[in-house]
Amino acid sequence: MTNSQLTVVGAGVIGMSCAWRAAAAGFQVTVLDPAPASGASWVAGGMLAPVTEAWPGEEELLELGEESLRRWPQFAAELEAAAGRPAGLRTEGTVVVATGAGDRAELDTLAAYLGKLGRAVERLSGREMRRLEPALGPDVRGGLSVPDDLAVDNRVLLAALRVAAERAGARFVERAARAVLDDGSRVTGVRTDGPGVDSQVVLVCAGAHSARLHPCLEGLVRPVKGEILRLAHRAGAFPPPSRTVRALVDGRPVYAVPRDGGGLVIGATQAETGFDTEVTVGGVRDLLRDAERVLPGIAEYALVESAAGLRPGSPDNLPLVGPAGPDGLLVATGHHRNGMLLAPVTADAVLALLRGDPVPKVVQAADPARFSLARR
Amino acid sequence: MTNSQLTVVGAGVIGMSCAWRAAAAGFQVTVLDPAPASGASWVAGGMLAPVTEAWPGEEELLELGEESLRRWPQFAAELEAAAGRPAGLRTEGTVVVATGAGDRAELDTLAAYLGKLGRAVERLSGREMRRLEPALGPDVRGGLSVPDDLAVDNRVLLAALRVAAERAGARFVERAARAVLDDGSRVTGVRTDGPGVDSQVVLVCAGAHSARLHPCLEGLVRPVKGEILRLAHRAGAFPPPSRTVRALVDGRPVYAVPRDGGGLVIGATQAETGFDTEVTVGGVRDLLRDAERVLPGIAEYALVESAAGLRPGSPDNLPLVGPAGPDGLLVATGHHRNGMLLAPVTADAVLALLRGDPVPKVVQAADPARFSLARR
Repeated sequence: MTNSQLTVVGAGVIGMSCAWRAAAAGFQVTVLDPAPASGASWVAGGMLAPVTEAWPGEEELLELGEESLRRWPQFAAELEAAAGRPAGLRTEGTVVVATGAGDRAELDTLAAYLGKLGRAVERLSGREMRRLEPALGPDVRGGLSVPDDLAVDNRVLLAALRVAAERAGARFVERAARAVLDDGSRVTGVRTDGPGVDSQVVLVCAGAHSARLHPCLEGLVRPVKGEILRLAHRAGAFPPPSRTVRALVDGRPVYAVPRDGGGLVIGATQAETGFDTEVTVGGVRDLLRDAERVLPGIAEYALVESAAGLRPGSPDNLPLVGPAGPDGLLVATGHHRNGMLLAPVTADAVLALLRGDPVPKVVQAADPARFSLARR
Repeated sequence: MTNSQLTVVGAGVIGMSCAWRAAAAGFQVTVLDPAPASGASWVAGGMLAPVTEAWPGEEELLELGEESLRRWPQFAAELEAAAGRPAGLRTEGTVVVATGAGDRAELDTLAAYLGKLGRAVERLSGREMRRLEPALGPDVRGGLSVPDDLAVDNRVLLAALRVAAERAGARFVERAARAVLDDGSRVTGVRTDGPGVDSQVVLVCAGAHSARLHPCLEGLVRPVKGEILRLAHRAGAFPPPSRTVRALVDGRPVYAVPRDGGGLVIGATQAETGFDTEVTVGGVRDLLRDAERVLPGIAEYALVESAAGLRPGSPDNLPLVGPAGPDGLLVATGHHRNGMLLAPVTADAVLALLRGDPVPKVVQAADPARFSLARR
């Protein structure tokens, strides 16, 4: 048995952000993960895009995302200072483009919705779009420019978070958590695939695997598989876009997130097929076909990697951030497509909870207590 | 400096087959390769298909391939006995199928050509084809059944060859050969990226890299890039074919070679882009699209691997097997698309050369002396 003041289960972007912030604030932190910085955070595209992810009926998620995005530049700056290495933030902005008539109609819906909420988005014709991003092909008929939706290189970020957390004193233990233990009223520790951990406070950040860790989380987080491709520009090929490109191609969403040095991340399929991380032929075919429709030049790019990750989906698409079940159990999971985006506000909320301070107002909508199982 | 009676440069299928046979015959053999069993042999599809690879004007290659195929069952049996593990031979046969009208016309040309040469091939309608291989989709309009064209699991084969060669006494040295050295008339050894090797006899089996090793090989072997995908059947998906499926889809050749356990290897593009082993988006897109046209069920398969290899192309598509340049220099390279197929007859020819015996008659067409540079 190890003794830990705060045990964080899961070393993805959420777990490591919380571990870093808590350790930097003076907590004695242990992070449990058999393979830190792997899983969905490693596979992710890295969009920080609350506006272009927005959808009617999900206003609380939009507000939460916008609040976290406002915190991102400061979060990145502090992380870079703490880790002594880049955080991976890219500030070139985002465009959303449409191909067919149905796609344009869907974009109209999004633009009208955002306008009603008072978010300024710029409508551009296909030609204006291509002037902005010459990599866009002739099938692009128009779209929106959303300069405030950003992106982060998820792998650069994860590396910085690991260093920052360790420098702040967090201890990484490469064991798999099997269950959060309690005595009926209060958390006592974590059972693992090796020696257990004694802990009065446990923070579950295990993404799609969170629901298995305590009965109070049962059914509240489910895996939503996403397949993603990593491309690299080759000499002689058309240069990649500088902004994140989100597109609708005959009703299917596809995105391309540029990386420094000519990398391009293409995503992402969505499938609810359980704990399945195999990349399928059909998924890759769809991603390549749709991405090529929007960015024809990628035909000459190298296909460097294909991978699948499991997003942690929640019943209402809002994350679960707050106390749940027995005393001492905190959760920060269910971030679905928005783990990278929501890391700063989630870490701030968790730190507030650890200190007994009030959480940021927009995070209250993410209180796990909205689900009866998670209620204390 | 190491002393070696026979130094084999390159541990692909040709190099290891020759090394095994030579070591088993009593020669003291050193094999030089920085990464044995990698490269084109590792990437390969593994077709043993002289008949369905045949093309008017390439009769000598057809005869060489057929002779090697006749030697394959014995080669595999001896290898299995020597290595104590499977050689990977599959004897389910091959079908060649056509989709569009142009593809059927091309198949007619092949069938007529083979008929003229006296090779019996069975013409089948689309429906008959699907009865034989239910995995074939409705776009398949007919084709040929060629039960004698076989396949081998290249990775199983390479593992067996390595064990057999080592058991027979061949020594593997993981160094890269830089040049075959001679004193103006006779080979003296091999310069490497580490200590050199003294050797009176050097056999160059370095595939696409062979031309760099001695001036007499300059321009005689060039890299022909091929991209390949490895798929795996998933629970619930349509079963893979049992035979190798070769197809023409709107003029593009694509093949699918089944592996034991539900594996399926999809190949292969051809591109002359130098020493370039990056997998391209366009290559993968073409392979997936064409393979799905023929075998629609693969959409549900896992995409396990994508890779590119460099086939060693020769000026006339025949390999180079025999003495070349200074005394003591032997070459066995330039096997292009047929390395797996031609391994048995090549190894037999090399052993004959080492012993001073006559080479098999069909191998004489592969004598490097047909090119002036390689002449002694």
